[in-house]
Amino acid sequence: MRPSTTLRPALRALQQLQKRTYSTPTPTAKPRHLLSVADLTPTEFTSLVRNASSHKTAIKAGTTPAGLKDTLNGKTIAMMFSKRSTRTRVSTEAAITTMGGHPMFLGSGDIQLGVNESLYDTSVVISSMVSAMVARVGGHHEVAGLAEHSSVPVINALSNDFHPLQTIADFLTIHEVLGNKSGKGLGVEGLKVAWVGDANNVLFDLAIACQKLGVEIAVATPEGYSMPSRMRDLIHASAPTSRSLLTETTVPEEAIKNADILVTDTWISMGQEEESARRLKAFAGYQITEALAKKGGAKKGWKFMHCLPRHAEEVDDEVFYGGRSLVFPEAENRLWAAIAAIEGFVVRKGVLV
Amino acid sequence: MRPSTTLRPALRALQQLQKRTYSTPTPTAKPRHLLSVADLTPTEFTSLVRNASSHKTAIKAGTTPAGLKDTLNGKTIAMMFSKRSTRTRVSTEAAITTMGGHPMFLGSGDIQLGVNESLYDTSVVISSMVSAMVARVGGHHEVAGLAEHSSVPVINALSNDFHPLQTIADFLTIHEVLGNKSGKGLGVEGLKVAWVGDANNVLFDLAIACQKLGVEIAVATPEGYSMPSRMRDLIHASAPTSRSLLTETTVPEEAIKNADILVTDTWISMGQEEESARRLKAFAGYQITEALAKKGGAKKGWKFMHCLPRHAEEVDDEVFYGGRSLVFPEAENRLWAAIAAIEGFVVRKGVLV
Amino acid sequence: MRPSTTLRPALRALQQLQKRTYSTPTPTAKPRHLLSVADLTPTEFTSLVRNASSHKTAIKAGTTPAGLKDTLNGKTIAMMFSKRSTRTRVSTEAAITTMGGHPMFLGSGDIQLGVNESLYDTSVVISSMVSAMVARVGGHHEVAGLAEHSSVPVINALSNDFHPLQTIADFLTIHEVLGNKSGKGLGVEGLKVAWVGDANNVLFDLAIACQKLGVEIAVATPEGYSMPSRMRDLIHASAPTSRSLLTETTVPEEAIKNADILVTDTWISMGQEEESARRLKAFAGYQITEALAKKGGAKKGWKFMHCLPRHAEEVDDEVFYGGRSLVFPEAENRLWAAIAAIEGFVVRKGVLV
Repeated sequence: MRPSTTLRPALRALQQLQKRTYSTPTPTAKPRHLLSVADLTPTEFTSLVRNASSHKTAIKAGTTPAGLKDTLNGKTIAMMFSKRSTRTRVSTEAAITTMGGHPMFLGSGDIQLGVNESLYDTSVVISSMVSAMVARVGGHHEVAGLAEHSSVPVINALSNDFHPLQTIADFLTIHEVLGNKSGKGLGVEGLKVAWVGDANNVLFDLAIACQKLGVEIAVATPEGYSMPSRMRDLIHASAPTSRSLLTETTVPEEAIKNADILVTDTWISMGQEEESARRLKAFAGYQITEALAKKGGAKKGWKFMHCLPRHAEEVDDEVFYGGRSLVFPEAENRLWAAIAAIEGFVVRKGVLV
Repeated sequence: MRPSTTLRPALRALQQLQKRTYSTPTPTAKPRHLLSVADLTPTEFTSLVRNASSHKTAIKAGTTPAGLKDTLNGKTIAMMFSKRSTRTRVSTEAAITTMGGHPMFLGSGDIQLGVNESLYDTSVVISSMVSAMVARVGGHHEVAGLAEHSSVPVINALSNDFHPLQTIADFLTIHEVLGNKSGKGLGVEGLKVAWVGDANNVLFDLAIACQKLGVEIAVATPEGYSMPSRMRDLIHASAPTSRSLLTETTVPEEAIKNADILVTDTWISMGQEEESARRLKAFAGYQITEALAKKGGAKKGWKFMHCLPRHAEEVDDEVFYGGRSLVFPEAENRLWAAIAAIEGFVVRKGVLV
Repeated sequence: MRPSTTLRPALRALQQLQKRTYSTPTPTAKPRHLLSVADLTPTEFTSLVRNASSHKTAIKAGTTPAGLKDTLNGKTIAMMFSKRSTRTRVSTEAAITTMGGHPMFLGSGDIQLGVNESLYDTSVVISSMVSAMVARVGGHHEVAGLAEHSSVPVINALSNDFHPLQTIADFLTIHEVLGNKSGKGLGVEGLKVAWVGDANNVLFDLAIACQKLGVEIAVATPEGYSMPSRMRDLIHASAPTSRSLLTETTVPEEAIKNADILVTDTWISMGQEEESARRLKAFAGYQITEALAKKGGAKKGWKFMHCLPRHAEEVDDEVFYGGRSLVFPEAENRLWAAIAAIEGFVVRKGVLV
């Protein structure tokens, strides 16, 4: 039977503290998880993007590659989504389906991580019945906790800290539009990305990937909205060489200078409505427009990216719906990114290269 | 990240107005959609019903036809349902499954058309990741808007204006029970249908189909509840010849005269509770009973249809659960109608004959 | 169109009373349902557990048995869950997927049994479109009502009275850990199970199975919390011989005496919060601990079981997370139990031995 959800939280907290001291089932081999781009070597990240690209070409031409087709037949992948997320949900379900698997969607009405039972219990139990877990959570500790105790691969489909599937999609898009196709890599070295907006999960993984790929990343955030120091440290530490490619400013025009790609995201997230007036004031001058790009001195052929959904305060219609905008190909690429990630971590068990 | 849902609706409205003036991705070929029976020629509608019938026979005998089996393997079809709808959901999911596809159910808790982002953005993005969209909406402009911008086929699974899947199921039922099986058509020409009740979406597509198939359709609605003139015009215009088969009255007995089939539907829909007392009074005398049918002079072997769910004020138990009732075969036929429609518009890309 | 949910309940009640007197569609052969372990002979129950065990071995070794693989391809199974239930949902969805079927999850937001239309109408209609219904309900009459009118097999995935899938999983676990593997049965005869806690649905089917398998079942419940007499009578009547193996007490230590397995469950279920203070007092002394087991005189190698989710008042961390605990294998076995049950009742149509 199902227990009370209000009963004795103190006891539950105690249980959480104590449980690690007791014996628990140990899986024979720890699965590999994808929680952040930080988990990947430059070669591995490149491989995921290139696989996404080649699968996209093949499937659009009508042939699902043998390494994908039917590889998840009869298998269930749990999609544990504590927050609504249209693009993430649709791309992940469609990706799993491409490989023949069954995406089992568990929304906040179906499961509440850490509420009715411990994350530990949930992770051990659900991972014993499925082939992988894809989690879209609030606090990053939730997906990290799932991964810690899971006997199957866990893929982070968005936490407050990281959004690796978005970053794979973003670099697939950059590779397609601006990349040099002649080599084995993504051909993006030397490009410059300007992030103009709030410092959030999408930025953190994007910046880590930029470091790994030799792409300059200039971040403009208003006074008081800069990234947390632990994230700054992590991003700087992601550079394979001693030279970090991350720069920060509070002046959008400075970040935009010579940029190939201008990126932004929502400033005011769900649940932050009370802050909206304050934020609209703080982000004045941050709306991406042709005028701002010109004033800042973006490269002549600059492109625009946004992970969607978008609101007009972040970018005007001329840019968003115009010829510089990559937002719709970028959104579609979420599908191909999810296919590559699930192939890499579930079908190929984390052996990415 | 996810945006505020309350922020700056004025800007969003402006964005909606402006966006059509900018360039947007153009699919190479426009897909064909099913929004209403009005979209179909008489031959196409007949073909859908006959396909539904032959697939029903084959699958019930244990053989899924080669033209269906595995045709949607690896493919995802989005089911975007802004309102609850048991029969529509179950029949559509089961139909997609029959062809090996994955039905991805998105309820009002998962997606809200036009609320958090524009219909345009939603349609372009989701259609780039799936093989088709089946939408059960409120206002017909929602499903029409999805279709306008979609790169994949859109099937209307119920809007305030039309319900084509119900009409296919209804004519499959009429064909099975009353149709002349000797020809290539449905063998229903010359029959008479009496609709006794509210003028709604189910009626509109049913009447259009009657016109296309040579079936008389007599509609009785109370004073003040007659169909909107734009629907009347559309129905009259659906007659392939100059003689329209639609007649209207406020007297149930007049509509019932010589009818082969008596049809009704709920008078009081979800969200109309406040009107219920007024409606119960207006529809006095509209309950379908043996006595009413006799008084009106229905044909001796008259049958009863209702798309369900039913309430007793519309039809009494003697008729609803009696030998004249086709309601349960009619409900099952929703499955076979959905199979034929998805085959026609998704597998066969709208090439119906 | 969709009807009002508030309209004229009196008429609806009348309709419910009257409808049995009218003719309704009769399926050609009544399907066999699984509503309780009471529906099964000892041989049939044993067969389900042994099939669960052998499928577990085969699939874990990488081979889905031919009798399972693809047997539900193209088929939809409705999962009608009026209450949230993580383990039941995940295990059932994964089981259906293993056989290639599509689990169609209908939660309380999707369907409400007996609310908007009669159970009769719902059962007839949905069963005409799917291959089986798996129902997790409140009152047992709901799943029994579905089964009565369904043209396809119905599996009870938890009602207020019974939980047969849990019992199959429990005996799979007992068989694996304590069973004598040399015979054709489960090798559990002569074991003793002590249930220390509330008298609920999980207990009722467990006790019925114990009777059928020659396992002693001693039940300790506080004064005033003993099982209803109709359940006591049913359990006693389940013994194949004249000697019932069920004993009852209000003293936990008495039940525990010589027990091989100690079992408990949540005392305070969802929706019973207002009773929690009263129950915590009544169940004082019922928490399963090493000290209680020692005081009661459990067998030296005693094991602990719990169907989850668990709260600390029922069992302390030392036992729950310790070496005696079978709770995580027991939870995983829900998957294998669901596979065996769906194979038995859907694929093999109730021919279990």
